[in-house]
Amino acid sequence: MATQAGAVKLTVLYGHPTDPAAFERYYAETHMPMVRKIPGLGRYEQAKVVGTPGGGQPAFYRIFEFWFDNDAHMQRVMSSPEAEAAVGDLANFATGGATTLISQID
Amino acid sequence: MATQAGAVKLTVLYGHPTDPAAFERYYAETHMPMVRKIPGLGRYEQAKVVGTPGGGQPAFYRIFEFWFDNDAHMQRVMSSPEAEAAVGDLANFATGGATTLISQID
Repeated sequence: MATQAGAVKLTVLYGHPTDPAAFERYYAETHMPMVRKIPGLGRYEQAKVVGTPGGGQPAFYRIFEFWFDNDAHMQRVMSSPEAEAAVGDLANFATGGATTLISQID
Repeated sequence: MATQAGAVKLTVLYGHPTDPAAFERYYAETHMPMVRKIPGLGRYEQAKVVGTPGGGQPAFYRIFEFWFDNDAHMQRVMSSPEAEAAVGDLANFATGGATTLISQID
């Protein structure tokens, strides 16, 4: 049941913001509309961290993932002006930082 | 194009192991076969981190994610003896630690 081999995933792990309500509002009303304008964007998933299996404080606040067919697809999509604007927008609301990872699906 | 609303995701972020070759071998030959024995397991995805958009050292080494229909489904699946064995197995190979997150898909 694994996903397509060869695909590439871009993961954004948001740290806990200083003001979660302000983060949520900006994220939904400003940032995600910018993301949705990125040409050629395929599947993506946004999720809010609600806990950990052990019950401790989660290390991150939100996860956002994009999937691409392959590395060339990711490079093409992420080099568009719309993608660069969305990445640049992180500084406007990600007060807990954003850890980004590129990974290859096994 | 977002995934089903209401779904829950369990993310495991593996830290960089002390011996990546040993990790890969154990992960493929011992750990993943244990994971695949978990009853009721739905969609999952395993990915190896290959970089960051900025070119720096990635914060994590591997990502593993399970998706569940809802919280009750996750609780049911993860409380099986097979799931407990797979979680307990982390101590046998995750030499760089494992950060786990439960998140709700928006």
